[in-house]
Formats: sequence, C-alpha cells, structure tokens
Amino acid sequence: MNDESPHGLTHFDPSGRAKMVDVGEKQATARLAVASGRIRMSPETVTVIREGRADKGDVLAVAQVAAIMAAKKTHELVPMCHPLMLTGIDVSFDLGDDHVNIFSTVRTLGQTGVEMEALTAVSVAALTIYDMVKAIDKNMVIDQIRLERKTGGRSGDWYRS
Amino acid sequence: MNDESPHGLTHFDPSGRAKMVDVGEKQATARLAVASGRIRMSPETVTVIREGRADKGDVLAVAQVAAIMAAKKTHELVPMCHPLMLTGIDVSFDLGDDHVNIFSTVRTLGQTGVEMEALTAVSVAALTIYDMVKAIDKNMVIDQIRLERKTGGRSGDWYRS
Amino acid sequence: MNDESPHGLTHFDPSGRAKMVDVGEKQATARLAVASGRIRMSPETVTVIREGRADKGDVLAVAQVAAIMAAKKTHELVPMCHPLMLTGIDVSFDLGDDHVNIFSTVRTLGQTGVEMEALTAVSVAALTIYDMVKAIDKNMVIDQIRLERKTGGRSGDWYRS
Amino acid sequence: MNDESPHGLTHFDPSGRAKMVDVGEKQATARLAVASGRIRMSPETVTVIREGRADKGDVLAVAQVAAIMAAKKTHELVPMCHPLMLTGIDVSFDLGDDHVNIFSTVRTLGQTGVEMEALTAVSVAALTIYDMVKAIDKNMVIDQIRLERKTGGRSGDWYRS
Amino acid sequence: MNDESPHGLTHFDPSGRAKMVDVGEKQATARLAVASGRIRMSPETVTVIREGRADKGDVLAVAQVAAIMAAKKTHELVPMCHPLMLTGIDVSFDLGDDHVNIFSTVRTLGQTGVEMEALTAVSVAALTIYDMVKAIDKNMVIDQIRLERKTGGRSGDWYRS
Amino acid sequence: MNDESPHGLTHFDPSGRAKMVDVGEKQATARLAVASGRIRMSPETVTVIREGRADKGDVLAVAQVAAIMAAKKTHELVPMCHPLMLTGIDVSFDLGDDHVNIFSTVRTLGQTGVEMEALTAVSVAALTIYDMVKAIDKNMVIDQIRLERKTGGRSGDWYRS
Repeated sequence: MNDESPHGLTHFDPSGRAKMVDVGEKQATARLAVASGRIRMSPETVTVIREGRADKGDVLAVAQVAAIMAAKKTHELVPMCHPLMLTGIDVSFDLGDDHVNIFSTVRTLGQTGVEMEALTAVSVAALTIYDMVKAIDKNMVIDQIRLERKTGGRSGDWYRS
Repeated sequence: MNDESPHGLTHFDPSGRAKMVDVGEKQATARLAVASGRIRMSPETVTVIREGRADKGDVLAVAQVAAIMAAKKTHELVPMCHPLMLTGIDVSFDLGDDHVNIFSTVRTLGQTGVEMEALTAVSVAALTIYDMVKAIDKNMVIDQIRLERKTGGRSGDWYRS
Repeated sequence: MNDESPHGLTHFDPSGRAKMVDVGEKQATARLAVASGRIRMSPETVTVIREGRADKGDVLAVAQVAAIMAAKKTHELVPMCHPLMLTGIDVSFDLGDDHVNIFSTVRTLGQTGVEMEALTAVSVAALTIYDMVKAIDKNMVIDQIRLERKTGGRSGDWYRS
Repeated sequence: MNDESPHGLTHFDPSGRAKMVDVGEKQATARLAVASGRIRMSPETVTVIREGRADKGDVLAVAQVAAIMAAKKTHELVPMCHPLMLTGIDVSFDLGDDHVNIFSTVRTLGQTGVEMEALTAVSVAALTIYDMVKAIDKNMVIDQIRLERKTGGRSGDWYRS
Repeated sequence: MNDESPHGLTHFDPSGRAKMVDVGEKQATARLAVASGRIRMSPETVTVIREGRADKGDVLAVAQVAAIMAAKKTHELVPMCHPLMLTGIDVSFDLGDDHVNIFSTVRTLGQTGVEMEALTAVSVAALTIYDMVKAIDKNMVIDQIRLERKTGGRSGDWYRS
Repeated sequence: MNDESPHGLTHFDPSGRAKMVDVGEKQATARLAVASGRIRMSPETVTVIREGRADKGDVLAVAQVAAIMAAKKTHELVPMCHPLMLTGIDVSFDLGDDHVNIFSTVRTLGQTGVEMEALTAVSVAALTIYDMVKAIDKNMVIDQIRLERKTGGRSGDWYRS
C-alpha cells in the first residue's frame, strides 16, 4: 500500500509527521469489531453494583450509555481516526467475583474498520464505572482492554490468537 | 454528606437514578491527581516506536496531544463528571521491553477532584498509541490503568496502597 | 425485525439495557422529516422580535443558526441516535400574536430516518429564542414540539393524523 | 445596565448584531434554576415505559443521562450562553396517565444564571424519551417546557406566577 | 518562571513533549484580548454582502454567531489552551471596498489570557464569510489575523507596536 | 440550481435567512481540496521552531495534530457546512526566513466539496503555532489563507488563477 511508510506505520507522511491516511479508494464494506476489557475491584464493590440495579441505582446503565456515546466520538478523541457513520453499537457487562467484564460490538458500512470505536466504548465504560463507584473504592484497576476480532475489509477477518 | 445514598454511592438520587452531585458548597482548593497505565506490545513494536521519534514518525507525540485534549473533554465522556477549569496537564511515557508506560498529572483549582481527568488522559493516550501502530500489531493490550494519588479537597490526600 | 424486544422498543437488548440498533442492512434511501413547535410569549415580546429584525437585533437569525448547528449535533445529544450525513436543513419561523411558530425540514441519504434531527432543530431554536429575549420575558413556554411527517425508508411515509 | 440595548434585549450590540454579554463585573454567587416540561403520549406508551424499568429496558434512565450531559453542553447549543462550571444537576420524572413530566434542577457558583441549562436538560430528556419509544408511538408531543424558578444573582429570585 | 523550557517556549516539558502549562498559582484577574483580521474579495462580492443585510440574507450575522461559538471552543481546537469561563465576547465587522475587516474582543476573569480565543473568533468569522459567499467568489483570501492588545495578568498590558 | 437565491448566494432561503443547502441529489464523487496559508514571525522565532524539532519541543507536530482534528470539526465551526466523512487529511509545513508556510489536502467521497475543511485545517494549524510560540513573539501575523485548488463534483476542477 503506497500510504505506508518504510517501517510499516501508516499514519505518518515521508517527513515523519502524522496524517490521516486516505481510505478513499478502499471499498465500502460491512465491518464489525469486537473488543473487551475489565475493571477489577473489591468483592464488596461488585456487590454494590449488582444489588444497585434492582433499586438503588444502576451503575452499568450509566456506563452503557456513556460507552455508546463515546464510540460515536472516537474520531474526536483519537487524532488519526476517520469519521465513520456507525450503524450499530452494543455494549454488555458480566459481573465476576472481583471484577466487571465489559464487551462491545461496533458495526459500520464504510471504508475503514471500527477497532478504535470498539476499544473506545470499552475504555469509557470502564472509566464511567470507576467514576460511579469511586466514592467507595479508589483502588479499582482498568485492565485487559483489547481487540477480540474484526471482520470486513480488504485485509480479511482477524481473531485474537 | 447528605448527597450520599444509603449504599455510599454519591451519583444516585433517592429514586435510584443518576445525578451530578452538587459540589457547590465544597471549598475551591488546589487539587491534583496522578494516574498511570500501560500498553503491552511485542518488543518489535516497542522498537518501532522508539526509533520513530528520531525521524520516521513520533507516535508518542501524537498520543500526548490526544491525551491532553481528552482530559479537557472528560466531562463530555463520563456522564456524571463536573466541568472543571483544568489549570495544568502533563503526560509522559516510559518505554519498556514489551510495553509503554503512560503517566498523567492533572491539576485544577476547584470544588471537586480530577481523578477522572487523569484516568481519561491515560486511557486516550493508550488508545492513540494502539491506533498509530495497529497496522503492525493488533495484539496489543491496554492494562493497569489506575489512580496513583490525589491531593486537595476535604477528604485529604490519597495514595495507592 | 430481530432487533426489536418483545414490547416493541428497538433500543434495548435482551438484558434490558440500551443499544444503538444496527441499521447496517437497511437500504440507504433519501429521507426527510418535518417537525414543528411553538414558543408562547406576551404580545409585547413578539413585537420586540418582529421589530428587531429591521435594525435592533435579529433574534430569529440567531435561532436559525443555532437550530441548524444543533441538528448536526443530534447524535451527540440523543444517546441512541445514529450519526448521519445530513444533506440539507431548513428552518423557518412564523410570528403570531402571542407566539412564534418554528418549522424544520431535515434531509439525508441514509439508512435511518431524521425525525430526531428535525425535532432537535425545533427544540434548540425555541431555547435560543428564549435565551435571546429572557431579559424581558421569563414566562415564555415552549410548546407543541412534534413530528409533522417523515418520508423515505422501509416503513413508508408517515403523516401526523 | 449599560449592556442593554434600547429595546431591553441584552444580547445585541448597537449595530444590531448578537453578542455574548459581558458578565465579568457581576458577582459570583450560588445560583439555581428549576425547569419542567412534559411529553404527551398514549396511555399504552406510558405503560411500556413504566413496566420497562423493571426488566425490559429503562427508557427514563437513558433520558436522565442524556439530560445531564446536555445541560453541560448548553453553551455549545445556545449561541449567546456563557460557559459555566455547573456544580450540580438533578433530573426527575413523574408518570401520568398519558404523559411523562420532566423536572430539572441545575446549580452553579457563577456570574450568570442557569435557566438555559435547566431548560436544555428538560428539552433533551424529552427528545430522548421520544427517540426511545418512537418505534411504537410517533404522535408524541413535547409540551410546556418552562422555567419554574431561579434564585441567586443581582436581579433576585424569580418564581413563575 | 519554572515552567519555561530553556528556549523560552512554555508549552514543552524537559523531554521536549507538549504540556498544558500549570497556571494554578497565577492570580485570577480580569483579562481582555482584542484581535483583528481581514478577508479580501472582489468589490462585487462586498456589494452582495452589504446589500444582503437589508433583505436577501445577512452573511455577517451568520459569521458573528459562528465566531462567538468558536471562541467558546478554542480549548477544543488549540491543544495546549486552557478551558476558561469566558465572560464576554463581541465581534464586529467593517466593510471596505474590496475586503471585510473583522474585530473581536474577548473577556474573562481567570488565570490565563484570552489571546487565542480572540484570534479564533476572528479566524472562524473569516472562514464563515468565505463559506457563505464562496459560490460567487472562490478567490477570497484571509489575511492579517493578529492580536491587537491584551490586558490583565502578571505580564501587564500589551499593544501591537 | 433551484437552491440559489437571486444574488447567487446558495446559503439563504427566500426569506433571507440562512439554510444548509440540500445536496441530496448531487452525485457522490471523489473530491479533493488544497489550501495554504502563512504565519509571519521574526527570524529568531523561526529558528526556535526549526531547532525545536530536534530535541526541545516540536511545535509543528502539535500544529499538525490540531489541524487534522480541526478539519474533522469543520461542520461544527462553520454553521452551514455539511457533515462529511473525510477520507484523508494531509498537512505539511515549510519554513521560510520569517514565516512558516502551511499546506493542507483534504479528501472525501461525498456530495459536496471540502474547501472549508482544507481552509479550517490551515487556520487551526496557524492558531496552534501562534499559541505554542506566543510566549516569545506576540507580533506574529496569520496571512494568505486561501484555497489553492479543488477537484471533483459537478462544477469541475478549480485552480487559483
């Protein structure tokens, strides 16, 4: 690909400065990316989140809205990301003994992939959970944010090995 | 504090729905928060980042600008965060054999702390590094995003134990 | 449609949490939505707005720019709205004895409708009129914001009955 | 007040063009504004919203997050509004037979009032409710958005008469 | 000042990467900045703008709203700018034979100056004029954007020499 | 074109108020715009910028990121601009004895041109350079921001004469 610099990084021009790579000649195809992450916390904090949903305050409902809105802002946060018309965003959670797992799936019909949108959704979900419960636990750690798979586009499907 | 619900979460009202806690009666004091995080990658990818600075493209310069701009957007990303006039933001990096460490320090003179701003800066720095080098390494993992310390405010200083 | 939950709301997943519905398999068609609304005020306030246009300050010119810019921000305001490439936005006003009527028409070529964009344009036009004249009249009331019609898309045309 | 033009509108300069009024010499005081509004809908739609909270999807939880985030964006939507450091935002709902009532309370410690922030929160809550249930009811009407009271500032307290 | 690097640039840290300078120990004082600029165009285009105000479409009214809204966004555009609570923004225009002059005045009560806000207002006013009339004249040139004066703050008043 | 008002300005409706022109029936074609501009400064300031890149702080790297991010925000800044999915953005710099030249190239596959995006990128690059070095030189002047060429679309290619 002629946009790539010698060391394989696509986001730089020959003078070594950043650029937003031209994707205008790529095919617009259905693309999907799945990402996951985790926020580790004390078992007591997990209990507060689990019980909260019923009546006291649904931490994860707020995190979910935040994650979806953040995915739409990815190109405003990550400088070299293209603006994209996202066609769908799902976020879900899974509570463990001492952590909350976060999953996101992002879809578009476009000329470039949505990995960064999926990773941004997970990151902001984790930040929002942190914010909502930090009054009782500041030692939480956000961990294992990673791409799980992506499909669509010239380079074919990719799955975490 | 009368804003707190029974289970200790401050961001909910008595009906169990989210609110932006009133901090209007808190003292405006100098506040600081330090956060850190890490993005793990192959040693080859670390080498590309290290050598890039010299002439081929400075990945970390882009991540640093992104992190500073994101800290200023924290209240647009994390729903219950207060808007704050940040007075200073520093971001720095430290390259290991198979990872990049990220550090942020955020300051304000205000009525509430800047933990979320510091954590957001680290998160977006990590996302930007991922974006800039994902063409050569999609297996990177963002890890260990956490608050290191906060100072200022009624509740006193806090250090990760 | 398999995205719909049992009670007919499309914006929730099976666990009862919000999602941005996938529209990736919908046809991209020309779509249009028309909305209207009203801001009620004293006859004296209407007179100030009417006479202002000539020489003292055109309240509605500011409201019109605000409405157009707000329509473009709809997906940043309404959490489950899709980002869309709006192709046209018109806003107009009609002054009554004790109110200003507001009309908007929004168009796109896309996979989902622009009802929310049209309603957002009307809402922000009304808010801006309120702001511009609140120094002389705080009793104004924003009323009757509603969708008038929408065309395009699989579900066919819709007109307010 | 020397910023006011002859007809009493503060947001215009002598040439009749809009300006953001200088509030730099006003006192920073604790200010509060309360606004309300209503979205009218069929009784069946109210039932879906009421029952949804329990298990199928909490429409009002999404609207509440949207309202709080929108209040923080008011100065980006309403052109002549000052940026303000909001210190607290509460939004609540009350379900009637054929409508949902929306209430907001916004607080700041600043040099100008927060009426527009309170009205914006109500407006965006109503828009979000519309969006979340429009699949089953497009005839909903947003109504009666108005300021209920404001306190703080030189001009004293104001209550809707 | 200990934030300055050896070559006098304040926005870099010792490793040569950008930072948002800490202004937390500066005094909050009343600050003002005045900037100006010009957009050159054909005399025919100036005539269209001049005559438009009366009845066909007020180009400068749109530019003025855009300039005021852009000043409030300065810290989102210029990466190392601090967020500030602007207390007042004025923009005005002066039509010459073959150009439009643009003036802005921005005020704050804060810990750092508003030069960038004033320059941003002028720049976006010029861009908006360009956009509004580019259908009839693409040869316009934006020129002479500069700071005229600033007052307030430790470094004292500054006037263009 | 039936959207044009009698005096040739496309962005106004028959009542003389602004509109976002409908481009829904235009062809989506590959479009490109090139813009340039200059920031004049003392030779000493140019030297600081030139030498900074090596080790003390790369002013132009920050300006480049800012320019790319601003191009993506054009439709939020210039009121009547359409949102567009930009497919590529390049920004480059050229240092003279007493100035820095700035060049931008923006591409899209869409229904309207990207002139404003290219001009916005140059403007914000210039503003960022100003901000980064204003501590040592407040007399800088931003000059000669202009469109160099545009290609694609019905009206054919255009080159500055």
